[in-house]
Amino acid sequence: MGAAARHREKLIGSAITLFRQKGYAATGLNEILAFSGAPKGSLYHYFPRGKEELGAEAVRQAGAVVSATLAQLRDSTTSAPQFIEAYCTMLGGWVEKSGYREGCPIATTLLETVPQSERIGAAGRAAFAEWTAIIASVHQRDGMAPEAARARAGLDLAAIEGALLLMRVQQSTAPLQNVARALSAL
Amino acid sequence: MGAAARHREKLIGSAITLFRQKGYAATGLNEILAFSGAPKGSLYHYFPRGKEELGAEAVRQAGAVVSATLAQLRDSTTSAPQFIEAYCTMLGGWVEKSGYREGCPIATTLLETVPQSERIGAAGRAAFAEWTAIIASVHQRDGMAPEAARARAGLDLAAIEGALLLMRVQQSTAPLQNVARALSAL
Repeated sequence: MGAAARHREKLIGSAITLFRQKGYAATGLNEILAFSGAPKGSLYHYFPRGKEELGAEAVRQAGAVVSATLAQLRDSTTSAPQFIEAYCTMLGGWVEKSGYREGCPIATTLLETVPQSERIGAAGRAAFAEWTAIIASVHQRDGMAPEAARARAGLDLAAIEGALLLMRVQQSTAPLQNVARALSAL
Repeated sequence: MGAAARHREKLIGSAITLFRQKGYAATGLNEILAFSGAPKGSLYHYFPRGKEELGAEAVRQAGAVVSATLAQLRDSTTSAPQFIEAYCTMLGGWVEKSGYREGCPIATTLLETVPQSERIGAAGRAAFAEWTAIIASVHQRDGMAPEAARARAGLDLAAIEGALLLMRVQQSTAPLQNVARALSAL
């Protein structure tokens, strides 16, 4: 990766971290630039349309990281309950380690910007669709029919997203542990 | 209610609406004041500690409205599946009617401010605890043991919160309909 591409990646990585911890509106472009260490001017060079464009790319890339994690967990587990337990244990550990400052990497930005921003909303829809498809494929591997597997994956995703919110507010991993137990017992 | 108390209520009501639609950080105090129609100066009169104090009160009051709605639904239904279906149908209707601009009245503000703001976090924890207790009481009415009912209510709340996020992003009531079907079939 050349220096230019590295600057772009650093800007996006910084945006993901800061949007996740503080929210989209509270994070200024200058703060992202300073956090990234990228040279002045690189922000408008790579993101000429400004913050919204960077926000959409942050949601897209954070979504891709989650997709990769889910796909990896699918391949390293042999059943849906095992997959759900493994994912929730991993997530709970991350959130706790962050001092409950970091939950879902895209939820806060999305709640702040949809439906006003079509660009960020589209990136969010694509991420959720991909996550749901991977979770559904785990249920299908267990023998569930495609439509039932998609419905079940929708419940899994909603419950995990909600638990990530509850965890940050309660500063406890209990909500996610409870959801993991309930979902894997279904 | 005297004029003074009405101004306070209008400020809080305006904060609830604007924080819910645009988020906490993106909503300025002047915007809340203008939206409320309350006289200049009333903001710092009623909320001398500023935006955070108003944010905590907005979370507290919005939480109380949800609690009242849940308690009313508990009393007008006779089983947990009926209760879940009725609540999700009501919520879905509201979110759709708002053009997907309004989801959970406290989730966005909480994600933007916890754990940094202890004051807003405490108001959020109290609201979630109250909602969970009411939902658990519905399951206990169906004969579930107290501990199981609380765990089940935690799953219900997490899934509904997650579905509210997914609904806003997907601009569709499908995620909540799916969750309602799944939860009431358990």
